[in-house]
Amino acid sequence: MGNLHTRTVDPNRIQDENFMAAALDVARVIGERPWPNPPVGAVVVKDGQVVGSGAHQRAGQPHAEQVALAQAGAQAAGATLYVTLEPCNHEGRTPPCAPTVVRSGIRRVVAAIRDPNPRVAGGGCRFLSERGVAVQLGVMAREALDLVWPFVVTGGFGRPYLELKLAQSLDGLFAPDPRRRDSHAPVYLTGTLSRVEVHRRRCWMDAVIVGEGTVLADRPRLDARLAGKPGDGPRARPRPVCLDSDLSLDPSLVSDPWLVLTGSAALSGRRARDLARSGAEVVAVPTRNGRLDPEGVLDALNEAGLRTALLEGGPRLAASFLQAGVVDRWTLFTAPVVLGTGVGWPAERGAKDSFSLTQVTRCGQDTMAVYDRMSFLDQLLKVMA
Amino acid sequence: MGNLHTRTVDPNRIQDENFMAAALDVARVIGERPWPNPPVGAVVVKDGQVVGSGAHQRAGQPHAEQVALAQAGAQAAGATLYVTLEPCNHEGRTPPCAPTVVRSGIRRVVAAIRDPNPRVAGGGCRFLSERGVAVQLGVMAREALDLVWPFVVTGGFGRPYLELKLAQSLDGLFAPDPRRRDSHAPVYLTGTLSRVEVHRRRCWMDAVIVGEGTVLADRPRLDARLAGKPGDGPRARPRPVCLDSDLSLDPSLVSDPWLVLTGSAALSGRRARDLARSGAEVVAVPTRNGRLDPEGVLDALNEAGLRTALLEGGPRLAASFLQAGVVDRWTLFTAPVVLGTGVGWPAERGAKDSFSLTQVTRCGQDTMAVYDRMSFLDQLLKVMA
Repeated sequence: MGNLHTRTVDPNRIQDENFMAAALDVARVIGERPWPNPPVGAVVVKDGQVVGSGAHQRAGQPHAEQVALAQAGAQAAGATLYVTLEPCNHEGRTPPCAPTVVRSGIRRVVAAIRDPNPRVAGGGCRFLSERGVAVQLGVMAREALDLVWPFVVTGGFGRPYLELKLAQSLDGLFAPDPRRRDSHAPVYLTGTLSRVEVHRRRCWMDAVIVGEGTVLADRPRLDARLAGKPGDGPRARPRPVCLDSDLSLDPSLVSDPWLVLTGSAALSGRRARDLARSGAEVVAVPTRNGRLDPEGVLDALNEAGLRTALLEGGPRLAASFLQAGVVDRWTLFTAPVVLGTGVGWPAERGAKDSFSLTQVTRCGQDTMAVYDRMSFLDQLLKVMA
Repeated sequence: MGNLHTRTVDPNRIQDENFMAAALDVARVIGERPWPNPPVGAVVVKDGQVVGSGAHQRAGQPHAEQVALAQAGAQAAGATLYVTLEPCNHEGRTPPCAPTVVRSGIRRVVAAIRDPNPRVAGGGCRFLSERGVAVQLGVMAREALDLVWPFVVTGGFGRPYLELKLAQSLDGLFAPDPRRRDSHAPVYLTGTLSRVEVHRRRCWMDAVIVGEGTVLADRPRLDARLAGKPGDGPRARPRPVCLDSDLSLDPSLVSDPWLVLTGSAALSGRRARDLARSGAEVVAVPTRNGRLDPEGVLDALNEAGLRTALLEGGPRLAASFLQAGVVDRWTLFTAPVVLGTGVGWPAERGAKDSFSLTQVTRCGQDTMAVYDRMSFLDQLLKVMA
């Protein structure tokens, strides 16, 4: 079994990582999120050659292992199966994979991480081991966990996964002073590479959330036009969601497929009808102190079938979601810009959760730091142990 | 000649980088800054073996090349000289190095960067080339420039080099609310690895600057006790400098070798005498609007023989030095902590200069980003071209 803390010298290691990378690629390019299942990819390797590959495309359709093994056919006998997630051994909407693996004649299974589903919980690996299949766990575990991260931390999308994106200046401001702006184009603190990275993240998201103030000031398109290379993500465009507690939004700024969340008091007014006429869907959410309740926002997303969302609102929205304790991941871009005056954090701020640093890197002249609500390592150990 | 934009496949490259790394190590461990000269290291390599090495220890003493060549003696004939800075060809306090290199029989010189001294400016390399010595420039240029960076951007320490260090929370605060603190121990946002990194930087600094408020609140020791491995830096402890415009400082908090900079009005009072009796040196600096003028602070440091300083004061000091345009490097640590309330940027802030990102890395759970006043690449090209 894999052990996170020891790294023994293993001549197959590099080879294994190459093929696991191939399996991860297969999982990354699936067209749609197979909710409520995590994205999984698999390749079958015989004599150093890939003889079968596949991904789990959609709930109810065959799992990745089944697709890859079917493609390999008789060549699976004596081959190695690389799969980004432990094969299941429970009957769900599809038959369990572990028995199929054994029947196929696969001699060795290399899995990146355990299935976080408590019904599996190591049972798939155990099933294989007990039937003489060599099992190795933990190859490229970090990369594999990153792929299913939203699935894991939300309990299989029992609630939407929320990533907060903020872009700040070196002196901790988020935007120039709005009173000094005279146009309605977005003002970018960060450079092109950071914006490409944000668009790449949007491709993985069901929704992008902004506040009414951002729509008014920036007229954002909220699409993923800077990404769009194959493999950037499964989605061409996330659904734009605007939070507007009193529906002060100009109806001409939204259209189909925008989702506008507002307080129930505003829902019966003329503005709601104007917005609906513009093509946007308007949905009520409970308010607290005149603001939309973050938990209520997540419930509304869930209702709308949106399982993952990128919160791109300004610092006031960020603060209210952090205080509510509903931010799973926090990605912070810092541009080498000193604004001096502008939009900063609201006086009332804080966070219910603590965060741990997962990744820090440069995007051109900007830095990008990714923080996760739960220690990434803790979570990794949980799905590895 | 070296070209920053092309990287041709060169079997000697790795070899060259190994020996240049050795020359950089020699430069890094010199006991004292050879001001007004930059630190330089050199090794002589014959048949893959180091047969001589040396550093320029102090102004007036032999240059690194001279020390290394003297040690190599007759073995220099046909050997390669690796040196972190182009050999000089002008007569200063010591004889020029380039003629010595030619006389020694060295066949090839590998230099990391050109000498930024305008009196040299490529003349050393030209001298060598014209006499049949093969010259290669640009091996580990980035590392070599980092070593002499303060020397380069201040025109050979014509003025002190100032690095600003700030440690902030994820929500852009620098310290908890002082009214909620009941002890006088420093409050650390950042983790141990970041603090070790700060101490390592202190080993390279002549002075560490704080404000009177920091001294009062934190009682900082401002030493380098967490660094101190050989090679961390040339200095065991930088000189502590406190900025206190009105000398409200408690004399018991400072002693020799503290330097206290204050307004000239305060210099003649009883407090100045008390401070001096505590062993601290008290020096007057011009004030503007009741605050010490940052340019005046740098002048006072220069007068005191302090050529490099780490500004570790809080955001009010940082803002005044940034506004004055005297910050050469800005190192920003971000801890994965959300404070909610506390000490933030002053309302009046800004920066005279723009900064470019040089380095971003993680220090445990913290991120560390290093920004330089001038584009590092621009500066690198300047000393390479």
